[in-house]
Amino acid sequence: MHLRRQPVWSSRPLRLIRAVCVALSLAGCAASHDGLPPVQATATRPAATLSSWRDTAAKQAIQSFVADVTREGSPSFVPPAQRIAVFDNDGTLWSEQPLYFQFVFMLEQVKAAAPRHPEWKDNPAFKALVAKDYDALASQQKALLQLVTLANSGMTVDDYHKTIGAWLASARHPKFNRPYTDLVYQPQLELLAYLRANGFKTFIVSGGTAEFMRVWAEKAYGIPPEQVIGSSQVVQYEVRNGQPVLVREPKLDFIDDGPGKPVGIYRHIGHKPILAFGNSDGDLQMLQYTAAGPGRHLALLLHHDDAAREFAYDRTSKVGKLDKAWDEAVADGWTVVSMKNDWQTVFPAPKQ
Amino acid sequence: MHLRRQPVWSSRPLRLIRAVCVALSLAGCAASHDGLPPVQATATRPAATLSSWRDTAAKQAIQSFVADVTREGSPSFVPPAQRIAVFDNDGTLWSEQPLYFQFVFMLEQVKAAAPRHPEWKDNPAFKALVAKDYDALASQQKALLQLVTLANSGMTVDDYHKTIGAWLASARHPKFNRPYTDLVYQPQLELLAYLRANGFKTFIVSGGTAEFMRVWAEKAYGIPPEQVIGSSQVVQYEVRNGQPVLVREPKLDFIDDGPGKPVGIYRHIGHKPILAFGNSDGDLQMLQYTAAGPGRHLALLLHHDDAAREFAYDRTSKVGKLDKAWDEAVADGWTVVSMKNDWQTVFPAPKQ
Repeated sequence: MHLRRQPVWSSRPLRLIRAVCVALSLAGCAASHDGLPPVQATATRPAATLSSWRDTAAKQAIQSFVADVTREGSPSFVPPAQRIAVFDNDGTLWSEQPLYFQFVFMLEQVKAAAPRHPEWKDNPAFKALVAKDYDALASQQKALLQLVTLANSGMTVDDYHKTIGAWLASARHPKFNRPYTDLVYQPQLELLAYLRANGFKTFIVSGGTAEFMRVWAEKAYGIPPEQVIGSSQVVQYEVRNGQPVLVREPKLDFIDDGPGKPVGIYRHIGHKPILAFGNSDGDLQMLQYTAAGPGRHLALLLHHDDAAREFAYDRTSKVGKLDKAWDEAVADGWTVVSMKNDWQTVFPAPKQ
Repeated sequence: MHLRRQPVWSSRPLRLIRAVCVALSLAGCAASHDGLPPVQATATRPAATLSSWRDTAAKQAIQSFVADVTREGSPSFVPPAQRIAVFDNDGTLWSEQPLYFQFVFMLEQVKAAAPRHPEWKDNPAFKALVAKDYDALASQQKALLQLVTLANSGMTVDDYHKTIGAWLASARHPKFNRPYTDLVYQPQLELLAYLRANGFKTFIVSGGTAEFMRVWAEKAYGIPPEQVIGSSQVVQYEVRNGQPVLVREPKLDFIDDGPGKPVGIYRHIGHKPILAFGNSDGDLQMLQYTAAGPGRHLALLLHHDDAAREFAYDRTSKVGKLDKAWDEAVADGWTVVSMKNDWQTVFPAPKQ
């Protein structure tokens, strides 16, 4: 258990063994495979299969968990109203390297507003932006968000949504040369559908802003705007030319990251999830909160260990750093999902 | 149209005519009664009928609206994902006189905490509380909320929920001598069920705090905690004795009232409702925002004009004042619902 400060992908066999142990300890296979097929819903709802997941311990942990909480009369049964599943977005549902995709969008906004803000020249986040110092930017999330609030202050939320949509329609990822919204993870799309087919309500709980995700999350993930929780900027109600509008103010409202995630969940959902899926230290408290129960629960951590198909990073990465959450996953028996070993496919096939 | 500053219940016939005109102008009867029964869902889902609504223009306005937005292929059709209905709580879904019920609960909390806060003796909201000056208290909602945040600061949210539940289980309304949760409106329970049967998602958008409502809203209204939007107090994530908890901080977070309601809707739901139901000036902006469209929408205002069965109040009431919103309803053709004339029943029958 001495993985501190060394890249975990340098010890793959050890990790694999560990992940399998963790998954098996959570899966409770003996108890759940009591003559029933592990997941009945997949038999009747073929659309919601986990076909991009390899038949490894991680998939079995998910299927056993879902079987346990949906089996009426069992002590681990959870009524549908309480089947709340929360997913981080960046690095959990879609890629986040080399820089959180929303940051790329924000940088465009800030650049466009810079001529109106000569005072930014001494701002560390702005200087990092001009220098394209992604590492510095990734560690200055709050300072960058503050620049963004200034950049789009006074804009109505409808106009802001249009700028997000326009950017998404034209921008391309530097490595994959595909639209950012293509870089969602196929196994996660299947997992979301599978959970919903089993009576779960699926939520996004992201450090990114809610409105950035809401523009595309329903089409991409089947998650409606009202189930997207994120960071936010203050907006104000105004009547302009006789029309009610909501206008963005130059002030951060809430940072839905780290310890903010359980707070965001409480504020928005009002009860505790039974499944949480994250990939970085920003998800640590959300996973702790979910893993504390009471009752059957599943805490999942995606490990980016697949340089060939996506990226490989963890303890030392500025974007999506996975360090404390990894240690806690190991110590507390959370299910670690290896992108390399547990996923058959990473991205959906490009649209023809 | 000169009703300003005079109690509107003194001119019932005039109001009735006006309400009928308003309702008919919204109902678009000619367009909607094109050979189809106005609401098909009621035929197949007998539980979701509006049987406590009299057959007046208000009921017809609701049924025509629902028929219009659910008729596939019609220009007014709205896909289910966008059928968002928002309801104020106090005075719209349950009673609010002689003092918002949550205030009664809060007063108990503040009284219990007073010995620890000698500095409150000069606080106007606290003085009004001691003097049982309900009028003064009703107009000092924010000051009272601030006392409450101090009173329950440091308490975990789970403990706080228990105090709400315990109070609701024992408290009785001074006029009706029934538990407060009995004083929900039967016609509104039917309307909520009817909307859901027609593919709507129903939300509460209240000046009260979300957690106060979430304790009982699902059982009372069929509205789950994640569809309850309200005012809020700051909470913080902590690990106490190895257990993750959320702790209440002595600070208001958000006031979901007046212009805060469209903001709360945007933050939480992320898209605009097509139906909004309120009863007071605190709902004005929510109704304006909904009524601005685009597309078919329905803005409803409940008028408390039934002293015999509930209470009669409007322009001059400290609790649930209905003044500007009434004028705007008249000017803009919103549907005004008269408790006295449009509702067959007010409260559910007492449980045996």
